[in-house]
Amino acid sequence: MFKVNENYQKLPGSYLFSTIAKKVSAFAEANPEKDIIRLGIGDVTQPLAPAVIEAMHKAVDEMGKAETFHGYAPDLGYEFLRNAIAKHDYQQRGCDIAPDEIFVSDGAKSDSANIQEIFGADNKIAVCDPVYPVYVDSNVMSGRTGVYDAKTETWSDVIYMPCTMENGFVPEFPKQTPDMIYLCLPNNPTGTTITRGQLQEWVDYANKVGAVIIYDGAYEAYISEQDVAHSIYECQGARTCAIELKSFSKNAGFTGVRLGYTVIPKELKCKDVSLHGMWARRHGTKFNGAPYIVQRAGEATYSKEGKAQLKEQVAYYMKNASVIKEGLIEAGYTVFGGVNAPYIWLKTPGQMSSWEFFDYLLERANVVGTPGSGFGPSGEGYFRLTAFGSRENTLAAIERVKKL
Amino acid sequence: MFKVNENYQKLPGSYLFSTIAKKVSAFAEANPEKDIIRLGIGDVTQPLAPAVIEAMHKAVDEMGKAETFHGYAPDLGYEFLRNAIAKHDYQQRGCDIAPDEIFVSDGAKSDSANIQEIFGADNKIAVCDPVYPVYVDSNVMSGRTGVYDAKTETWSDVIYMPCTMENGFVPEFPKQTPDMIYLCLPNNPTGTTITRGQLQEWVDYANKVGAVIIYDGAYEAYISEQDVAHSIYECQGARTCAIELKSFSKNAGFTGVRLGYTVIPKELKCKDVSLHGMWARRHGTKFNGAPYIVQRAGEATYSKEGKAQLKEQVAYYMKNASVIKEGLIEAGYTVFGGVNAPYIWLKTPGQMSSWEFFDYLLERANVVGTPGSGFGPSGEGYFRLTAFGSRENTLAAIERVKKL
Repeated sequence: MFKVNENYQKLPGSYLFSTIAKKVSAFAEANPEKDIIRLGIGDVTQPLAPAVIEAMHKAVDEMGKAETFHGYAPDLGYEFLRNAIAKHDYQQRGCDIAPDEIFVSDGAKSDSANIQEIFGADNKIAVCDPVYPVYVDSNVMSGRTGVYDAKTETWSDVIYMPCTMENGFVPEFPKQTPDMIYLCLPNNPTGTTITRGQLQEWVDYANKVGAVIIYDGAYEAYISEQDVAHSIYECQGARTCAIELKSFSKNAGFTGVRLGYTVIPKELKCKDVSLHGMWARRHGTKFNGAPYIVQRAGEATYSKEGKAQLKEQVAYYMKNASVIKEGLIEAGYTVFGGVNAPYIWLKTPGQMSSWEFFDYLLERANVVGTPGSGFGPSGEGYFRLTAFGSRENTLAAIERVKKL
Repeated sequence: MFKVNENYQKLPGSYLFSTIAKKVSAFAEANPEKDIIRLGIGDVTQPLAPAVIEAMHKAVDEMGKAETFHGYAPDLGYEFLRNAIAKHDYQQRGCDIAPDEIFVSDGAKSDSANIQEIFGADNKIAVCDPVYPVYVDSNVMSGRTGVYDAKTETWSDVIYMPCTMENGFVPEFPKQTPDMIYLCLPNNPTGTTITRGQLQEWVDYANKVGAVIIYDGAYEAYISEQDVAHSIYECQGARTCAIELKSFSKNAGFTGVRLGYTVIPKELKCKDVSLHGMWARRHGTKFNGAPYIVQRAGEATYSKEGKAQLKEQVAYYMKNASVIKEGLIEAGYTVFGGVNAPYIWLKTPGQMSSWEFFDYLLERANVVGTPGSGFGPSGEGYFRLTAFGSRENTLAAIERVKKL
């Protein structure tokens, strides 16, 4: 008789955002007259930029003619896109990253979940707590996390780096030495980040202890402060210790278009084994490229018009962030984030648990947010709101919260 | 110091099609005047059908307006597509498959590589030999295949089911009992298939021994004979033992569009653990949906116009298949396949090895094919040509082969 991967049975509950979706649809069904505003899942609402739409129409037309039809894409992604990424996201910022160190994918969620596959089962992972749940869940599925303690909501073999009000949401070097360190900066869900100098310390630490940093830069486009790095490769020595994951979801609204990329410098090795070569092998075996049309859409985000249009879109969402932030402060909440990220992280009022506040907000204001505890035990007592709604909905949601 | 997944180091050479691509580009560079015809990798050459192009343009326009913009897709895929699949690919054929048993993905290659993740590491896999290399390679990466013997080119923990001229390329029940059985029918690379009655025997066998059949039906659209099943769910009892993988790459030319789906019936369980629930969890954690535009393109393949256009496209490629088959027979080759599949499988002449014939064909006729040994040890002495070229190139290639 066949056997299942028993690690899956260890996973508590379902994926955070699936749980929220189920709760919200149950509420909507029971209260069909209520106008629910969703500031929960980090999904965007603004349409794709005109430059992107134009590029996609053009690419669709190409697919309709034999002379310009495109079948299987090159393993690592089309050169036109990898060249644009290398130039605009790295070389123009003084980062030494070549096009053939970039792997184009169907999004940073897949990459952040799949990247652990090229590492041994006995590596110890360290994660910020709270953080995007996919890092831990994907390692649970691979059996890398030990035993789950339902009381503390922690895994025995995961090193948690608490990020709370007390330390300004900045992770500290763990007591136990990790092999793989996940850093999501600017952070999802806290919306906070660290300075370039602090990031350099992490790079130095990783090189010293022989750890790999898996650096999720999905929210890089929202950085507004000067002393925050836009890529980990701005730091000295990152080429020997860091993998960077990037997304087009938040800077270009590609959540439903699906495009991301992973950078693995060729110097990143375990003894003489190149992680670049391993990821190339995985990419070639377990994936078959992002759609041609989507890669052309990605390329368009780097054109002059595309860049200007995306800048406007980011500004639109960041205006929402300040609407939320200022509104909540006015309503008496303690609030973080919203400066270098499209997330507002608030302390739940009156000792409410994260899920209690979720229900309270859903039932009383018909506003959907995300319970902080869903991102890790240190997220308990916090709550995330996203700036990705429309202006109208964002304003309405905050008015409702103010009236509670 | 972090450690890598050592299973990757066990993989011999690179992914088959990457090796071929490198050999061909080396030859092209050394011989820039040669006109190379590629009948190697199974990539299509005909443009997307007009109904698909129209649907994609419409979907692109929707993505450009706030009112019709689509962000993250539902976990399992959009209902409009899952409903169309359930209706046209299953219910109209009398197969009892519901829309919520269908998981839309970015293609059957990813699914066929990822599906093993929900199974325990100690399952024993059985594969047809020769077969699409991804099944074995993905299991190697997960440590399920034991030790590699370079001499026989086999893995100690893989059950090989030889498919050769001697048994008409029909796999036989293995002596050792497998837990997971990969069946690709019609088969890639041999182009042969089995009857509905023979498939029923496999379903009965799997239910008897408690094995799961992973049924890859990527070439289903090419079936021309009456007594061949279009889905494994045409067989009694398949709902308790079979997972079916389907692709839009070959029936609709989506190799560069990226769309596929996996069916897991809700009855398919290991004791009380549902594989459907596990795959849903994996889908929700390690994947984030196929693009909206691509899912609309998939839906269009089921419209009246779409179906008629795809039928023409399949007929075009099958005409190529007969051009190749008849031409090779005329030239004295022993040839198989090409009736229910777009692949021609030939015996290499004069005791040549598969790679010797690859070089011979590339150098002397400037035609690229695929060495049979790349698909497994029993593929040695065979060679695959695909019918996915243009008519002009197909005719030219066969003329060159005839002149050798």
